[in-house]
Amino acid sequence: MPNSDIVQTGSFSLRGAPGFDLTHLFVCSEGTLGIITKIMLKLIYPPKMIKTMLVMFDEIEAAGIAVASIIENKVIPSTMELLDKVSINAIEDFNKVGLPRDIEALLLIEVDGEPEDVEKSAKIVEEVCSKAGARSIEVAKNESERNRLMQARRSLFPVLARLRPTAITEDATVPRSKVPLMIKRIHEIKERYNLLIDSCGHVGDGNMHPILLTDKRDKVEMEKVEKAVSEIFDYCIELGGTLTGEHGIGVVKAKFMEREFKKEGMKFFSDIKKSIDPQNIMNPNKIIKTKDIKVDYV
Amino acid sequence: MPNSDIVQTGSFSLRGAPGFDLTHLFVCSEGTLGIITKIMLKLIYPPKMIKTMLVMFDEIEAAGIAVASIIENKVIPSTMELLDKVSINAIEDFNKVGLPRDIEALLLIEVDGEPEDVEKSAKIVEEVCSKAGARSIEVAKNESERNRLMQARRSLFPVLARLRPTAITEDATVPRSKVPLMIKRIHEIKERYNLLIDSCGHVGDGNMHPILLTDKRDKVEMEKVEKAVSEIFDYCIELGGTLTGEHGIGVVKAKFMEREFKKEGMKFFSDIKKSIDPQNIMNPNKIIKTKDIKVDYV
Repeated sequence: MPNSDIVQTGSFSLRGAPGFDLTHLFVCSEGTLGIITKIMLKLIYPPKMIKTMLVMFDEIEAAGIAVASIIENKVIPSTMELLDKVSINAIEDFNKVGLPRDIEALLLIEVDGEPEDVEKSAKIVEEVCSKAGARSIEVAKNESERNRLMQARRSLFPVLARLRPTAITEDATVPRSKVPLMIKRIHEIKERYNLLIDSCGHVGDGNMHPILLTDKRDKVEMEKVEKAVSEIFDYCIELGGTLTGEHGIGVVKAKFMEREFKKEGMKFFSDIKKSIDPQNIMNPNKIIKTKDIKVDYV
Repeated sequence: MPNSDIVQTGSFSLRGAPGFDLTHLFVCSEGTLGIITKIMLKLIYPPKMIKTMLVMFDEIEAAGIAVASIIENKVIPSTMELLDKVSINAIEDFNKVGLPRDIEALLLIEVDGEPEDVEKSAKIVEEVCSKAGARSIEVAKNESERNRLMQARRSLFPVLARLRPTAITEDATVPRSKVPLMIKRIHEIKERYNLLIDSCGHVGDGNMHPILLTDKRDKVEMEKVEKAVSEIFDYCIELGGTLTGEHGIGVVKAKFMEREFKKEGMKFFSDIKKSIDPQNIMNPNKIIKTKDIKVDYV
């Protein structure tokens, strides 16, 4: 703690600890309340079987509809990654995985668990994707084929970063049923501002990663980038979404926090911050904006 | 909020909301931070199949070992209720469900889910219980048999309350692997103080419910009861457990909170409380003890 106390939070019991939930208060606090010195994690068993599928679409909206329908059909894939045309071509340019360059989007889907459940879920995924208008569905036949597909996804950020001098990865996360709407809006924003925006994402969690490919030295384009980002987050919040799925708020998005939490929520945040860290020595200016900081993109 | 603000916490997105986790801060705060005006809950589908089993034991320790082994074998029953001899006889005295009066303990176990998984899990439960020394295992053949067994469990508190003028239900919760040790210690405390203590509990969650059956007008016995309760919680915390599994802390257990959270944790609690409710108008004296209150048991 900022006063040098060591506090143990949580409980080894399944029912958790009573009183204020200090564990969850620290998770996502991004170092603004104190320093985590020790973490106990619960381990889960690895799945007995994994099935990896690659689903090709001629229209990105169809991929979005497939995502929402898979969830509606009670299948929870362990992986559901969306790659759009920008991503697919960047991967092919630098990695030559063998993805078709003429499709508009693909979903990389994995289901895992007990073998019977996996087969059942995979069948539902195939049916739902066909119905949503998938062009074709490929199933990885073995571990090495699976690795090739997953490797393609993992290489995405480095290959995109080669397209333009500056890559700004956003992290707008919406309810899963709203993924099709969010995809559509990102596309519309991209056209309107004439920007290069890649629409990938962990769409199975509603976690979109619009990656804005730009050049920070180009002041005119950077102004459009900032407007585009702002519009993406406005719409994300309108859809019941949130500013971040996994990257956090930090300094860069602190200015947007009030849009999600309103004045009342921000007062709550700063009351807690002040009570735990009255001297504001723990990661000041993160999450709760206290002064303007000029952000330099890498 | 105490200042009359309305704050919305959490997010509709699967990834949750950024910043301090206000939702979890309110859960279990027992009204000490503010009043919850609206709750959105996630619904889950009801299970396709439920299997209810009644497992009889000649020794209560064997039942505890069965509980720990079931969990070790990766089966998570949706219900796992322990009833000891006091419970069984009280139920039979007033309800005549047909439980054998000469056993020392029984476990009421339910597994639910997809039919194949239920059959698999039920088989593991039967094997593990036999190995732990169960005398016999009965499986409910239909819905009405299931209702009869569940009804017996539900009637437990009212029938126990008829045995003595005052019933004090405690809520000590331990890691599931420590259930056998906790059962043993409650038994030992009961013998040593010569008290009537029923050892039932939702043991599948490690949530023990020692019920102390006494008479609040008997000052000598009440002193022993308080010592027994204090020892139960000391041991519970020693085992990595917690003061409450579901009943909460309130006024009665506020005096034990420092045993679980130490001075440093209590400072954290009261800093948060003061920052959100500086005038201490929200359920004062609950969770955080600020003055001595005489508790009158019903």
